[in-house]
Amino acid sequence: MYRTNTCGELNLTNVDEKIVLSGWVNKIRKMGGMTFIDLRDRYGVTQLSFNQEVNPDLYNQANKLGREWVISVEGIVSERSNKNLNIPTGEIEIIANNLIILNESKTPPFTIETNTDGGDDIRMKYRYLDLRRNIVRQNLEVRHKMTIETRKYLDELNFMEVETPVLIGSTPEGARDFVVPSRMNQGEFYALPQSPQLFKQLLMVSGFDRYFQIVKCFRDEDLRADRQPEFTQIDCEMSFVNQEDILNTFEGLTKHLFKSLKGIDVPDFPRISYADAMKYYGSDKPDIRFDMKLVEMKDLTTDRNFVVFDSAEYVGAICVEGCAVYTRKQLDQLTDFVKRPQVGAKGLIYLRYNEDGTLKSSVDKFYSEDDLKLWAERCNAKPGDLILVLAGETEKTQKQLSDLRLEMASQLGLKDKNNYKCLWVVDFPLLEKDEELERFFAKHHPFTSPKPEDIHLLDSDPAAVRANAYDMVINGVEVGGGSIRIHDSEMQNKLFSVLGFTPERAQEQFGFLMDAFQYGAPPHGGIAFGLDRLVSLFVGLDSIRDCIAFPKNNSGRDVMIDAPSRIELEQLEELGLSIIKPKV
Amino acid sequence: MYRTNTCGELNLTNVDEKIVLSGWVNKIRKMGGMTFIDLRDRYGVTQLSFNQEVNPDLYNQANKLGREWVISVEGIVSERSNKNLNIPTGEIEIIANNLIILNESKTPPFTIETNTDGGDDIRMKYRYLDLRRNIVRQNLEVRHKMTIETRKYLDELNFMEVETPVLIGSTPEGARDFVVPSRMNQGEFYALPQSPQLFKQLLMVSGFDRYFQIVKCFRDEDLRADRQPEFTQIDCEMSFVNQEDILNTFEGLTKHLFKSLKGIDVPDFPRISYADAMKYYGSDKPDIRFDMKLVEMKDLTTDRNFVVFDSAEYVGAICVEGCAVYTRKQLDQLTDFVKRPQVGAKGLIYLRYNEDGTLKSSVDKFYSEDDLKLWAERCNAKPGDLILVLAGETEKTQKQLSDLRLEMASQLGLKDKNNYKCLWVVDFPLLEKDEELERFFAKHHPFTSPKPEDIHLLDSDPAAVRANAYDMVINGVEVGGGSIRIHDSEMQNKLFSVLGFTPERAQEQFGFLMDAFQYGAPPHGGIAFGLDRLVSLFVGLDSIRDCIAFPKNNSGRDVMIDAPSRIELEQLEELGLSIIKPKV
Repeated sequence: MYRTNTCGELNLTNVDEKIVLSGWVNKIRKMGGMTFIDLRDRYGVTQLSFNQEVNPDLYNQANKLGREWVISVEGIVSERSNKNLNIPTGEIEIIANNLIILNESKTPPFTIETNTDGGDDIRMKYRYLDLRRNIVRQNLEVRHKMTIETRKYLDELNFMEVETPVLIGSTPEGARDFVVPSRMNQGEFYALPQSPQLFKQLLMVSGFDRYFQIVKCFRDEDLRADRQPEFTQIDCEMSFVNQEDILNTFEGLTKHLFKSLKGIDVPDFPRISYADAMKYYGSDKPDIRFDMKLVEMKDLTTDRNFVVFDSAEYVGAICVEGCAVYTRKQLDQLTDFVKRPQVGAKGLIYLRYNEDGTLKSSVDKFYSEDDLKLWAERCNAKPGDLILVLAGETEKTQKQLSDLRLEMASQLGLKDKNNYKCLWVVDFPLLEKDEELERFFAKHHPFTSPKPEDIHLLDSDPAAVRANAYDMVINGVEVGGGSIRIHDSEMQNKLFSVLGFTPERAQEQFGFLMDAFQYGAPPHGGIAFGLDRLVSLFVGLDSIRDCIAFPKNNSGRDVMIDAPSRIELEQLEELGLSIIKPKV
Repeated sequence: MYRTNTCGELNLTNVDEKIVLSGWVNKIRKMGGMTFIDLRDRYGVTQLSFNQEVNPDLYNQANKLGREWVISVEGIVSERSNKNLNIPTGEIEIIANNLIILNESKTPPFTIETNTDGGDDIRMKYRYLDLRRNIVRQNLEVRHKMTIETRKYLDELNFMEVETPVLIGSTPEGARDFVVPSRMNQGEFYALPQSPQLFKQLLMVSGFDRYFQIVKCFRDEDLRADRQPEFTQIDCEMSFVNQEDILNTFEGLTKHLFKSLKGIDVPDFPRISYADAMKYYGSDKPDIRFDMKLVEMKDLTTDRNFVVFDSAEYVGAICVEGCAVYTRKQLDQLTDFVKRPQVGAKGLIYLRYNEDGTLKSSVDKFYSEDDLKLWAERCNAKPGDLILVLAGETEKTQKQLSDLRLEMASQLGLKDKNNYKCLWVVDFPLLEKDEELERFFAKHHPFTSPKPEDIHLLDSDPAAVRANAYDMVINGVEVGGGSIRIHDSEMQNKLFSVLGFTPERAQEQFGFLMDAFQYGAPPHGGIAFGLDRLVSLFVGLDSIRDCIAFPKNNSGRDVMIDAPSRIELEQLEELGLSIIKPKV
């Protein structure tokens, strides 16, 4: 028998019991005639003690062990004289009377500690050692618990988990698909799903009523820090519901997850329209842990001969509490920040509302003290606050103000990772115009339904049509999004035509869905959550990478197993493929 | 609001309530001034009633509805005069006072009934309609429930579900991989996993202790009726365990599934060695719902000048209860059965033990009545029984007797689908010789550990080495299998060499696993269950297809979405690939 107990459970109630533990040698401490070993497994750490006088052979054996060796130890649980009250097993130790080496270990290339000395690259190459670190394993424990609790909640509400296929057909719309050549149908390809969207809608047509799936999805995109070629969604769909039913159901799920995983009662989620989100936060995923809303200033700034503001479509400000004391240097740094290409502003105007009530701005020569007072009033500024103003084209400037707002929140330490602020953003526009291609694309996807009251605008003013679409946002992160779908084939055809699909192309790509809609499709809608992001938010990670057991790097490589890799020529021939040289 | 209730829950306790239901028109019955509609949703069927006299407009509307239209109805729950006690809602009906048509439907190409008139092909093309049939949806409900209960059971035992990657590296060993060309690493390919084997072993090296995953796996094989290119495994691995621990844990899981899904208490699973399974059943997945064990007869049949038996390595029989009355024609049909190429026997010898105690055999001229009496005794035959004898090369003949045994069980109705007989087959051989290639292959996979007492045979008699490998078999179906793994890199290297891998090739293919084993790998082992097969067994299906929502046909095609399909030339070029003409 390898063990009677784990390394995380023995305490004073077990004193004098004869036990067997197995695990990894975490630490070895030698102190004059005594050797202490911290034995580690997934459940905790237990101290083993070896006494030279009592058992010299065993003591010598213990002294030969190395870090990360795997051993099995038999011994007696004893009360420790030198207690460690920080860990559950800290009041006892094991007086060892037998020791078996199950496996030796080379010295690991980095320390197996929460604060490791290993850099990103080496940790990824030896991911199996990196996963030994408590902090990484704990992320995956949260992930496990989140999926267990999600399934529990949804199962109780009669949602059925249905597996949809991974080998499906390619759709040229949207992001790039990963494809899989078919050997049995040479020259043809499967595609890996970017989401089970069409299948979950078909399940609604099938009368499944409430579907969910925790499912891998795939996108062949150029990767950014927070993107992975394979990612996991909590994918859901319901029939005979309106938007309100879906928001309530999944607000309920999210509250359940906060309660069961973190013991937090989050209050009801505020709802904000997309239009207001842009107006007040310059973002469709506002971080509402802090205020600093965008304030429109155009009317207060015109006709004072300041050409920057006069020529701007939009002038907007944020009021930063208590920052009137910012030095010239700090303000210059903020100017540099907004002028970075990622932000893209031309410059930054400030107005200091000093503690003594005086006003000092970088555009004093254009604006009188009375003008500036009006600015301060509009911003609800108090003495001691700093007002930062940007100007330009409306959407771009709002976005720049949003970036500045988030930067100021970081500088002021307002982004408390343990303060969770959830909200719904609703009433997204249905369509988005690609100015270059001069055509409309679906903002969400082409199955999203327009708001009934906006349908009449589909021909005359497509950009003004709002959708029954919604996103859940937590602390500035979009964790989920969805929509009420079109369930009627006439409306679906109409939308395809607005999106510039010929009937033939629509039939070719989505024919089976349009066929299905002719056989009694119920009203339906759904949502999908990004599990990776949700977990990283719950554990306070900035990147999703460390809540994925075996992630890929930014070139889409798994450096541990060295994939992708070349395959044998024979295999290529079986698939009827050959590799061409890349175009120069 | 689309509904206050579902179609499966209203009964006499709801009489006089004002309710709203939504669903599909399942049946319309018109009887002089009354129209009755069965409204169906996932939860059941509720009768709606429309009275011409009371509400002629509504009555006329109802009469225009067609099969599978989606409607929403408001009405009052009333006691029915003509009760249907076969369904939970059969004592009430809804007196409709409002009707909204949510969607019309074309006439479905087959009837949405348990016994449909639709053939396989049309059902697959319109799978979304096929899934409306109760019987198909119920299979998927069992599947959902099985995954929920599996996770519940394993979570309570501290198993952690960890998602392993879908985009991995290709390994030329074993079945053929599906590959995925990489755009970012042109000329290189990912492979889709045939199982998460290597990753789950790495998770044990990481100290995850108890892992599971319900996971899609992929195999590019030529498909048989019961194979799908993508299938789902319940994949598990444990550390610091021996074989007994694993058998007990997963026998426990299986018992839990039988109890929670079917209310059945299955007794402890018998264990049988691979050698005995072959000897007594001619199969490594014996169906023990019935007896009819194989009986060895060689010693009783030699030296009587019957050259067929004299020249045979093996002579074996089964005793079929009560079949002495089989006619000449029936026996000829059995002979035809064993001579089919799929079975491959040369002929069949019978011995009738008639009710009157006389013995009649097809080889009377070679064997005396005393000889035949010994046969009957050896077979424990009673008057009325039929003994069927085959002869030839041992393994082949045992296999043929197994086929014959299963055929007789079918003819005698002994394969009761509601009688579940579970067992473990243990002590599989470690290696299997490919006679043509004259080399050994791993019977299970190359990470399976040999039994310690057989290790000394690895060089001298590899075929005799038994493995710590086991299969769970239910009613003749292998539902799961696994092994205790090698955890020590020296033994792993030894095995690779027995399997004919050069050190370079082993390093190239499994280098990361062998590296990992040098950093403190714990003793570990695991098992994987075929979820599709387990579900089909629980619901009594012969094929796994109808417990998969969207299966593929025998050419690997999804005929509903028409995948795989051609992709755009641009996409191919981005991948650096071109399609070559298949070799003639």
